[in-house]
Order: sequence, then structure tokens, then C-alpha cells
Amino acid sequence: METVSENRAFGGVQGVYRHTSAVCNCDMTFGLFLPAEAADGPVPVLWFLSGLTCTHENAMTKAGAQSWAAEQGIALVFPDTSPRGEGVANDEAYDLGQGAGFYVNATQAPWAEHFRMWDYVSDELPALLSDTFAIDPERQSVTGHSMGGHGALTLAMRHPGRFRSVSAFAPIANPTASDWGRKQFDAYLGADEATRAAHDATLLMRQGGFDGPMLIDQGTEDQFFDLLRPQALAEAMAAQRQDGVLRMQKGYDHSYFFISTFMEDHVTFHAEALYA
Amino acid sequence: METVSENRAFGGVQGVYRHTSAVCNCDMTFGLFLPAEAADGPVPVLWFLSGLTCTHENAMTKAGAQSWAAEQGIALVFPDTSPRGEGVANDEAYDLGQGAGFYVNATQAPWAEHFRMWDYVSDELPALLSDTFAIDPERQSVTGHSMGGHGALTLAMRHPGRFRSVSAFAPIANPTASDWGRKQFDAYLGADEATRAAHDATLLMRQGGFDGPMLIDQGTEDQFFDLLRPQALAEAMAAQRQDGVLRMQKGYDHSYFFISTFMEDHVTFHAEALYA
Repeated sequence: METVSENRAFGGVQGVYRHTSAVCNCDMTFGLFLPAEAADGPVPVLWFLSGLTCTHENAMTKAGAQSWAAEQGIALVFPDTSPRGEGVANDEAYDLGQGAGFYVNATQAPWAEHFRMWDYVSDELPALLSDTFAIDPERQSVTGHSMGGHGALTLAMRHPGRFRSVSAFAPIANPTASDWGRKQFDAYLGADEATRAAHDATLLMRQGGFDGPMLIDQGTEDQFFDLLRPQALAEAMAAQRQDGVLRMQKGYDHSYFFISTFMEDHVTFHAEALYA
Repeated sequence: METVSENRAFGGVQGVYRHTSAVCNCDMTFGLFLPAEAADGPVPVLWFLSGLTCTHENAMTKAGAQSWAAEQGIALVFPDTSPRGEGVANDEAYDLGQGAGFYVNATQAPWAEHFRMWDYVSDELPALLSDTFAIDPERQSVTGHSMGGHGALTLAMRHPGRFRSVSAFAPIANPTASDWGRKQFDAYLGADEATRAAHDATLLMRQGGFDGPMLIDQGTEDQFFDLLRPQALAEAMAAQRQDGVLRMQKGYDHSYFFISTFMEDHVTFHAEALYA
């Protein structure tokens, strides 16, 4: 593993690291914020999964999360959103290929060779983190934005007992019923309905939901509202009696200004679960 | 004036606006955060002047200032760092031409036609802001980073009575004695010593300093430490008995992680002066 950069930040260290991923069959880069407390032993960790077009860097520099994580003594992980590089398949559209991994394992050509983001964030990166850094694998929570909100919700629901809490900012909540989802599932996963359903937060919610607290924020002025379908997830959460809160935030859109505005609430929410 | 974008953020609005600048003889873009209180009448304003290579956008998205400004009911202005566009002179180096206006009025060809950032941030943009937005020109403070710290300090010292407080993150503190300064002053200002001295915070400090409180933060691991020459300003501040604090922050570098770590302190510092 290679250290790309380390900056002192909020009393801790904001690092960027590159490693060879066996799962994605290419080099992968991620950001990791370690609070000052990590010098004394393993700390809890909050995953932040990013949205379409993002690298490991966007949330790391624009979400304002380190301030609150430092206050709570929590590490933050910022994975990339797809495999990358010259030998990696891509598409001209912003919402397919590099920058648009959708947190699935592709089964279809030309994507299957590298696009295995589900296994990457589920298995390979967590193992690397707990082997290498002062991170406590018994205290993990997960959040994300847009496509990353989709990733956070599906990851949390499909790994019962792993995450103590889950939250999302404007998640793609029902991809099997949206043009943010159907197109990508066609390309990556093909026609198999069961495989597709296993990557849809609303459908997973209907099958049992998440075994912990859930927080969803959604801006009322989100320019992608119709693609996100929060109403489908809201319905499923209520029907499932899911322990959770979904907040419709008046006037807010899909940007990082929306994320940074409510980041304190999310980190505080996860801290309560991580230190319970 | 044209609205480029407006995003709800921290209960207020983060806007980006474009206007035709008579001073710079081209279109100029700036960011403006207005807190919720601006709906009820003019609010105090804190200027943030950015560093080399930055546009209006870098600090607006990475400095984390809106959170604290909203808490204090203060507006934030994020000007660009130079004139820009096809007809505007430029240089291949990152530290000259577009993105590197150095907050001076160029007197030398080919720069004199557009590079008049001193008049732009001193006169034209302040007038536009107080004419157009709910901003109180009687309550202004100024801060900045690196080249923008230089701009903030020189602006504050050369406009006595205008700014209630000034601060800077890792400012270019003594440009007449640095390769970050001499090169640009040669190009923009020519050889005239008096003109150059009027844009050097250390020299201005020696001639009287600032008529209000001053806060300077400087990271000990700043990779540009030798170019910034904080020791020259520190000496001049002490010699002048300047009301102010200069903090050497152990382990911090020149990045936005350094800025965002201490932004709360700076906004709180200015708020005390703005609401005194």
C-alpha cells in the first residue's frame, strides 16, 4: 500500500492511500481520516460512499465531515466509486463506467473484469483497513450520498450485524424503478431480477429492513428528485416499521451544500450508535 | 448582474454571481453566502480572499466557513483571484496571470489592461455588494489564505476604518523579499519601490499596522514556509505592538485541511469585532 498524501486535520490525519485491489483487478485509491484518538488504539469508523462522478476526494474535501468526526473520535473512510485506469472499461456517459460503479459486482461484459465494487466495499477494503489502521471492525456505521446513499443502504441491509447505524443523503432509493438504476443494472447485471432486487434499498426494506437506526435526509428542491424516488423508500420504511427517520429538508437541493449542512446531524447520529 | 447558481445552505443561500467589471474590463464571478438573517435586513460581512490558482469556488466549497458564518449571522464574500477570459493576458506559470492577480493594480504591459484586482476588491465589488444585497458596509472584516492572506492584510492596513478585524491563514507575509512576490511585482508593478512596498504586509506593519485586532495562523509543516516569511511579519507585529495574535500550529501544512480546521476560530474572532 502506498501513501499518496497525509495532512494534519482537526487534530488527526487526513490520509489518501493507494493499493492494488485483487477484487477490482486494478489500483484503487481511498481517503481515510483518523482522529487523534487513533493514536491510543482502535476507533469506531464511519464509511462515506460517494455519488456519481465522484472519486475518493469529493466528500473528503467538501462534506465537512472531519470536524464532527474529530469531535466524536470517529474515523472516516472515503472509498472511490469505481475501478479506474487505462485498462478499465468506461463509457462516455457520466452515469456508467468509471465514476459510476453503483456498488455492485458486474456480471456482464465488458464490466465484469473490474467492476466489483460490492465485494470491494464489503470485503477487501474493510479487511485492509482493520489490518493496517487503528480501526475497530466491531464498531462500524455507514452513510453516503445519492448513488452512495444507495450503496450505504444496501450494504447495511445485506450485512446484518455489521453496521450499528446507517444514514443517507438523497439516496437513489429505488433504482430498479428509475433511470438511475435500470440503465446501470442492464449494463452491469443483465436481466436477472433477483440480482437486481438485491441492490434496491426499497425492495430490501420491504423484505425486512435494517437491524438498527436509520436516518435519511432529502432536499425538497433536489433537481434529481424524480430519479431518487424517496417516496418509495419512505413508504417501505413506514410499512416495515423501520427504526428510522426520513427528513424532507425544505429548500435544499442535491449538492454538497446540502450534505455539509446536515453532516453534523449524521455524524452525531452515528456516534450515538457507535458509542452505545 | 447574472445569477450563476443559488443553493440553500445552512439555512441561508450560497450564491454565485457574474457581472461585467468596469475596473477589470471583463466579466468577473464571485461567491456570496447570505445567512438566514439577511432576509430581515443588512448583515455584517466577512471577505475571504483566496490564494494562487483559486477561483471564487475553492474556499466556497472547501473552507467550511458557511457553518460558522450561519451560526454568527455573517455574510461571506468569495471573490475570484484575477480577471479571466480569452482576451485576458496569461502566463504558463501557475503563479502569474490568471489565478494569480496578487491583489494589485498592474501598471505594466501586458497586464495593465485587466489586472486591477486592488481596485476591484477595494471599490467596485464592495459597492456592487452593498447596492445589491442585504450587506451592511459599516460592518466588514476580511480574511484570506496565502496570496489571499497577503490581500487581506494589505487591504485592511491600507483602508483604515473600513475593516473591524483582519485575519489570515498562512499569508504571503513579506512578498518584496520572497519569490512569491518579487516575480509578480516585477511583472505587474515594475521597479518602483514605493508601489511595491504598499503591497507588502510586513512593510505596512512597520509603518503603523492595523487599527483593530489581527489573527494569523501558520502551520509549522507548511511546505511553502520559506516563501511566506511569517517570521518577518511576526517581528513587525511585535515591534509595532500590534493588537493581534500569531499562532504557529504544530503539524499543519498549507492545505485547505489547515484552513478548515481553524475556520471556526477565525469566524468567531471576526464575529466578536463585527458585533462589538
